[in-house]
Amino acid sequence: MNQSRTSATFAPPVMEARRWLDGVTHPENRPLLNVSQAAPVDPPPAPLRAAMAQIVMDDAGAHLYGPVLGLPELRAEVAAQWSASYGGDVRADQVAITSGCNQAFAAAIATLCTEGDEVILPVPYYFNHRMWLDMSGVKTVPLLVGEGMIPKAADCAKLITSKTRAIALVSPNNPCGVEYPAATLSAFRDLARTHGIALIVDETYRDFDSRTGAPHHLFADPYWDDTLIQLYSFSKAYRLTGHRVGAIIASTARLAEIEKFLDTVTICPNQLGQRAALWGMQNLGDWLSGERLEILDRRSAIEDSFHLLTDKGWDLLGCGAYFAYVKHPFAMSSADLAPLLVKEAGVLLLPGTMFMPADLPGGASQLRIAFANIDRAGVQTLFNRLSPLEL
Amino acid sequence: MNQSRTSATFAPPVMEARRWLDGVTHPENRPLLNVSQAAPVDPPPAPLRAAMAQIVMDDAGAHLYGPVLGLPELRAEVAAQWSASYGGDVRADQVAITSGCNQAFAAAIATLCTEGDEVILPVPYYFNHRMWLDMSGVKTVPLLVGEGMIPKAADCAKLITSKTRAIALVSPNNPCGVEYPAATLSAFRDLARTHGIALIVDETYRDFDSRTGAPHHLFADPYWDDTLIQLYSFSKAYRLTGHRVGAIIASTARLAEIEKFLDTVTICPNQLGQRAALWGMQNLGDWLSGERLEILDRRSAIEDSFHLLTDKGWDLLGCGAYFAYVKHPFAMSSADLAPLLVKEAGVLLLPGTMFMPADLPGGASQLRIAFANIDRAGVQTLFNRLSPLEL
Repeated sequence: MNQSRTSATFAPPVMEARRWLDGVTHPENRPLLNVSQAAPVDPPPAPLRAAMAQIVMDDAGAHLYGPVLGLPELRAEVAAQWSASYGGDVRADQVAITSGCNQAFAAAIATLCTEGDEVILPVPYYFNHRMWLDMSGVKTVPLLVGEGMIPKAADCAKLITSKTRAIALVSPNNPCGVEYPAATLSAFRDLARTHGIALIVDETYRDFDSRTGAPHHLFADPYWDDTLIQLYSFSKAYRLTGHRVGAIIASTARLAEIEKFLDTVTICPNQLGQRAALWGMQNLGDWLSGERLEILDRRSAIEDSFHLLTDKGWDLLGCGAYFAYVKHPFAMSSADLAPLLVKEAGVLLLPGTMFMPADLPGGASQLRIAFANIDRAGVQTLFNRLSPLEL
Repeated sequence: MNQSRTSATFAPPVMEARRWLDGVTHPENRPLLNVSQAAPVDPPPAPLRAAMAQIVMDDAGAHLYGPVLGLPELRAEVAAQWSASYGGDVRADQVAITSGCNQAFAAAIATLCTEGDEVILPVPYYFNHRMWLDMSGVKTVPLLVGEGMIPKAADCAKLITSKTRAIALVSPNNPCGVEYPAATLSAFRDLARTHGIALIVDETYRDFDSRTGAPHHLFADPYWDDTLIQLYSFSKAYRLTGHRVGAIIASTARLAEIEKFLDTVTICPNQLGQRAALWGMQNLGDWLSGERLEILDRRSAIEDSFHLLTDKGWDLLGCGAYFAYVKHPFAMSSADLAPLLVKEAGVLLLPGTMFMPADLPGGASQLRIAFANIDRAGVQTLFNRLSPLEL
């Protein structure tokens, strides 16, 4: 085939990892432990499902086209809850609803960049961000993270050129799990503003942050929208992954540009998913608090038991939200180790090499564990399978 | 703002047209007649809504991530029905499900083109096709249509350069309504194959074709997938616009590339919409036949009564599927006429200038009437409002 946008990037890592399962059988007493993907495995809670069924029957609008930038009531609800929780001022016309958070990133980049531009991503990065930049003709400039897997604005400053259009951060981070300190985010915002570039902050996992109160003060700045573009997903909080609903919070002028992209790619976000997200925001606050505590407990389980692996030479590099990011002790690349773990330990996880360019150090010794779907007993099982390994 | 992908294109026409309504009040005895958009205004039939409500309650998978390329059962159903209706051989692994048909076009182009490439579109074109090419750094090469608003492969041959990657046709056509003859499509396929480029055929309106039997023989060619990429939408047939479900039929190798794009932009098509489309395909065949007859009757109503406008200097250039494409008799551009018609006639429609580049002739004297949502009486009302106009 010709050179094309898609030929400029790699195959989706999650699909590649799923192919490692082909032809591998797992003993009955050791079923596969899948810690490869950050996604709920259960449907939304029953009251939300009942509300959705009612909407399907009674609300014709749930089946028809709606506004490109999303359901006005949902945009207003996000604006109100954001204003309250971040202690700032977010208006409904600064909120757009997207077909999932990946599309929010794609749309943001389409308004910022053209051929040959540059965007800075801390590494390890979220691979779909890298893939979209590749397909957009935009160069990914990798920013090596510092201590505790946290990137430093001072390091980032050295990477900015006349072609840089944005810095994109993910907090809590995928794949590293770490929560970026508020001061880190403020420093990046100041850096971006100084250079007249955008700061994209993907907060897909914000509902599972271990900190109480606002995780940053970016929205408390009355001029936040001259620099900040925030991305969000309703998928994790309300278990709506299959309905594809995300959000982008940015200036009204930028949303007018984003409207071009969204109209052309999907016309509008799906209507039932938007109504479900709205119902969730209005009715599932307490339920979500409970979900958060459960995820935080699973995180604690990882931290409490990790000594089982530390004793064997493993290292816990980051832990939080849905993810633990770890260093393995074996004399082989994680790219080879990960498929081997399917056979040898009945564990599916993603290698660090999937989260950074091949020429950068680190990935070969790193693995991502998406622990959100395994409880305390599951964590124990996972460590019991990994700790005896001699490879 | 910087130069960006979105700055390379124009604002969505449908949204622009909707703004013409701002501040205009319509007399009670003359409510607005909206013939601007090709979209159902009613929800899916009650049995499909009931099936969807049941799925929402009982099928956990309807709320979770699914395969990037779509629900296997839906891919298989499309393959089976396509093989039967087109008299050819289409396999399930040659079918991918997308978040609407616009996304199918976007994904196809991403696998074909990169910066500076060219794609040939007959004009008038579907504006979202043009917008996506603009945002992809791809040059739209306009092909003027011939007699009866049908493009000619011989004319197209003169436009092919070393940078041409595809020819994209829409049949039945949006905006012109005309059904491309099978021989036209075969000639374009032969031309594309000779030059080693792709032929994209968007058949969003196939279910409302006035011809019985296969509208073309492209799938009867056992090597169809070396050249043909077909696009489809479930939105019109089953009134699922709000759920965003479309399809792309292409070679398995191309679908592997398309998987990169879909994974990065939306991860997967929404699950409930896919299940609804499958239920529709399996249970609503008779109902859809009735819907088709109703649309064909509306088309006849346009043709039967158009003499009311012909008498005043109007011309019917094309008519079929959801659209009539007409020439108006006024000494002003359709770009000025269309907003004026909102005030003067209580009619919202789109001007021909939205369907072609500004430097091409024709658009200024043309208008698109999306008649799918007005019955015989509505057509009469429309013509009664347009025919007395003196501007």
